[in-house]
Formats: sequence, structure tokens, C-alpha cells
Amino acid sequence: MPTARTAASPPAFLGDLARSIDDRLAGFVSSRDLPGPLRRAVEHALLGGGKRLRPILTLLSAQAVGGSPARAEPAALAVELVHAFSLVHDDLPALDNDDLRRGRPTLHRAHGEAMAILTGDLMLGLAVEALVTDAPDDALAGRLVAELISGVNAMIVGQADDTLGVRAGGGSDAERLESIHRQKTGALIRAACRMGAIAGSGGTAQAALPAVTRYAEAVGLMFQIVDDLLDVEQTTEHLGKSAGKDADAGKLTYPVVHGVEASRDAVARLRAEALSACEALGPSAGRLAEVCEFLAVRTR
Amino acid sequence: MPTARTAASPPAFLGDLARSIDDRLAGFVSSRDLPGPLRRAVEHALLGGGKRLRPILTLLSAQAVGGSPARAEPAALAVELVHAFSLVHDDLPALDNDDLRRGRPTLHRAHGEAMAILTGDLMLGLAVEALVTDAPDDALAGRLVAELISGVNAMIVGQADDTLGVRAGGGSDAERLESIHRQKTGALIRAACRMGAIAGSGGTAQAALPAVTRYAEAVGLMFQIVDDLLDVEQTTEHLGKSAGKDADAGKLTYPVVHGVEASRDAVARLRAEALSACEALGPSAGRLAEVCEFLAVRTR
Repeated sequence: MPTARTAASPPAFLGDLARSIDDRLAGFVSSRDLPGPLRRAVEHALLGGGKRLRPILTLLSAQAVGGSPARAEPAALAVELVHAFSLVHDDLPALDNDDLRRGRPTLHRAHGEAMAILTGDLMLGLAVEALVTDAPDDALAGRLVAELISGVNAMIVGQADDTLGVRAGGGSDAERLESIHRQKTGALIRAACRMGAIAGSGGTAQAALPAVTRYAEAVGLMFQIVDDLLDVEQTTEHLGKSAGKDADAGKLTYPVVHGVEASRDAVARLRAEALSACEALGPSAGRLAEVCEFLAVRTR
Repeated sequence: MPTARTAASPPAFLGDLARSIDDRLAGFVSSRDLPGPLRRAVEHALLGGGKRLRPILTLLSAQAVGGSPARAEPAALAVELVHAFSLVHDDLPALDNDDLRRGRPTLHRAHGEAMAILTGDLMLGLAVEALVTDAPDDALAGRLVAELISGVNAMIVGQADDTLGVRAGGGSDAERLESIHRQKTGALIRAACRMGAIAGSGGTAQAALPAVTRYAEAVGLMFQIVDDLLDVEQTTEHLGKSAGKDADAGKLTYPVVHGVEASRDAVARLRAEALSACEALGPSAGRLAEVCEFLAVRTR
């Protein structure tokens, strides 16, 4: 008889999927013709752990629309490469100036700032390359690139808004915060899920895209609000990255703008929204629903 | 009766094409939904002059294969966005640390380092977006993205090799220099020409691609050797960027490795190689040939 898992322990399939994605990422990097130092920098940034949330959502979205997760693998690699690129550049001294990432030195601390800038650039390029290299179908590759790059560009705009306040003056703090969260974190999670549905189905799952998108938008915002709550509540040691830093830096976060209780309410509301999208997708979206439930209660 | 132009004056159509590309670039940027400060940073980096050599090669390659330059316009925008992205990141303090570009402050001097990093990232993303947004044909978009990104990734590897010596120890100085030049400058010029041929013909000019590629590889290397020669021979005021800097920094350049005379001989040999590719393409490649002849004798 299966035992009920506790609220905060991840479903076992998450670890299996993450390890499988780790292997594929390592295989992809070693298949590229890169000079040794650049390869080692990419590996430092890409293969140093991480939850692999985005590529897992890609694979599970393929499954949710009745498609093949295997066909969504290039899209899964692409989205994690983009995520890794964004962390490397966001950590740079001129931006967040972070020394610690996933419990290890950030790339610029380990390999120098010039290498970190170029390695970030290269990982963005490799992400696009993952979608088009040996693509069995140029048209599908073109569609996937369009999804990915729309997420990438929104993410960069969100980061610029968050770090530099480029939209400062437009709208209330609450509006600006929601815009930053939807762009900086949400847009890439949206692309991850939509690419999974499109690639996994070979482009035929058009009818399921609105529900997948609804799931992705709810989970993406929920994920970031939980992140904001963890930044307030957890220690650096537990998170493996600098905690309390956002609040210290006077950055807009959900708990700062709305308070902790209202932030928890928002998490509950977005969780329900994502689960309702999973119901619309049917039993094949069971794992997407499990991921959502775990992300709502995660502690790191 | 038309007067013969002097060796170093550019053919008139170059200026016309550059102005037309300036207009298209400005239109593309203003059509994107960007916060004001980020838009102004992109405009500073992208619209501050420049020869527009790469997009001109894209349009003329479309013409050379009997295709339509108008259909190659998105590819032309994409290649110039990539070029602008690469200049912004290469100029950063951690890399070449340049204050001056096209006679104006570099982006990080004018808008700060964080903005320069993010704006560079965004221009790379916008380059890919230019190829896929409103593409009339997903399959063609997929092929063009593959060409572009192969050029982008080689360019980044070349820059890492040039700045950080990531391949140091492998091969003679002459081999390493040729590898850097082919990657750092050559790969994007190759992509510019190949994208023009593919996009302009709607993907049907397959038979002409080898000659276009041969032209692009010869002109790309020739362009960089001429650049190295100008860095030795010209003043900062004339070039609009810091001159003598490469030699001062002990960087590998053609004149340093091979001497000035041998560098001039290489220019003559590559010019002949590119012109022979134009002959193979026929009269439609007349302007490509004129550009090659001008690039061989340019003084800035």
C-alpha cells in the first residue's frame, strides 16, 4: 500500500526526471565543439544542480496533451540553457552581484567576469541551437524558436525592470511587481510549457494550448511568490543562495507589497487556478497537477 | 559620362542601402513593446551609425542568387542586431574595456554596465525574434535561425579565444589567429550571406549556396585582415574607435604575426577568391563584387 507523502516532500518522479535532464544536458554540452575552458564554464553554470523545474514542465506538458515527452527533449534542454544563461548574467557584479548560487560560487567568482559574460551569451545561443540542430521538421523548429524567444525577451525586460527600474513611475508598486514577476519568471515558464505541448504533439495539440498556457501562467506567478516568501522566511544555508537579499536591497517582492498573509492567499488562489487547468486537460495532466501541488508547499 | 571613382571611395549604392537598413532597424525597434530606457539603450547601440556591412551583404546575396532583397530584410535586421549585441558586450570593462565606438561613448559608458549587459542580451534575442516574428513560412524561419545561430555561437567562441585565450597552447600563432578571425568575424559574415541567399530565394537557391559561401568566407577573412592593417596604420580620430589598441594589448593580429607586406598579399589573394565566386554567380553578383573591391581598399 503506498504511503501518503508529506506535504513538502517532492513526488519521486521529479528526481528521476531531473536526473534524466541532467544527463541530456551533459550529453548536449559534450556534443558541442567548444574549447575546454569555455566548455568547463558552461558545465559549471549548467550542471551544478538545480531543480530543473522548467525542463520538467516541458516534458510533463508534452505528456499532458497526449504527446511524447521524448520529442520535447530539445525544447527541455533549450529552456534550461536559457534559465542558466539568465542566472549567470543576473549574478554579475553589475547586476545582482551574487557570490553564491546553488551552494557553489557563481560563475564569475569561479571563472572571472569576462568568461561569465561570454558563457552566458553562448548558453543563450546554444539554447536556440538545441531547437534547430538536427530538427526533424524545420517548421516545428521555427514555431518552437518563436515560443522560446518570446519568453527570453520578456524575461530580459523583466530583469531590466527589476534591477534598474526601467519602468519606474508607471503604475502602482503592486502593478509593477506583478508585471516584473510575469515577465522575469513567468514568461520562460510559459514558454517551457507551451513548447512542451507543441513539440510533444508535433504541433498538433493546438486545442490544448489554452489550458496549458493557463496552467503555466498560474504556476509561474505562484512559483515566484513562493520564492519571495522563502526569501523572507528561510536561511541562506537552507536555500543554497543568498537569502533576505531581495528585501535588503529594497526590491519589490510580494510579501513587501502585499504582506505575508495575502501572499499565501495568492499562492492558494493560483494553485487552484493551475489545478483547474489540469482538470480541463484530463488524466494525462496528473503529473503537472502533482508538480503544482508540490511547488505550492516547497521549502526551498 | 560616368567618372571613375577613386579606389577608396565607396560605391554610391552602399550609402543608399545603409540608409534603408537604418530606417528598417529604427522601425523594427519602435515596433517592439519595450520600456523607454531599454529602448533608448537599444537605439544608442544599434542606430548610432555604422557601415551596415553585414546586412548589406545579406541583401546583395539575395540579389546575387536571383532572389528578392525585400524577402531577405528580416535576415538583414537580424544580422545587424547580432553585430550590435557583440560590440556592446565586447566593449564592456571586463572584456575590451572600450570607451569609444563609432566616435561616441560605448553603451556602458553612456547607460551603465548593467544596462549594457542586459541590452546586449536583448539584442541577441531580438535578432532571433526578427527572423521568426510574422515569418510567412515557419520552415524557412527555422532554416534561417539555424544559419544565424551557428554564426552567433562561432562568433562568441572566437571572442572568448581572442580575449581570454581559451584555446591557448593549441597550434601556432598563425593557426590560432586564422581560427580567431574565421570565428570572431568570419562566421557572422558567412551567416549574413547565406541567410540572404536562402531568404531571398525562399529557400530555393540551394545550388548557388557554395559560391555564396566561398565569397562570404573570403570577404570575411579579408575584412578582418584589413581591420588589423587599419589598426596599425590609422589614427583614432579617423577610425572613430580606439586605434593601435590591439597591438598595444599584445593581441594576435595579421600584421603582428605575418608582417604588413604579407598581410597585404593575403588581402589581394582573398579579394581574387571572392571575385571568382562572384563570377561563378554571374551578373546578378555584380554588386557583391563591387563591395569586395571596396572592402579591399577601404581606409576606415
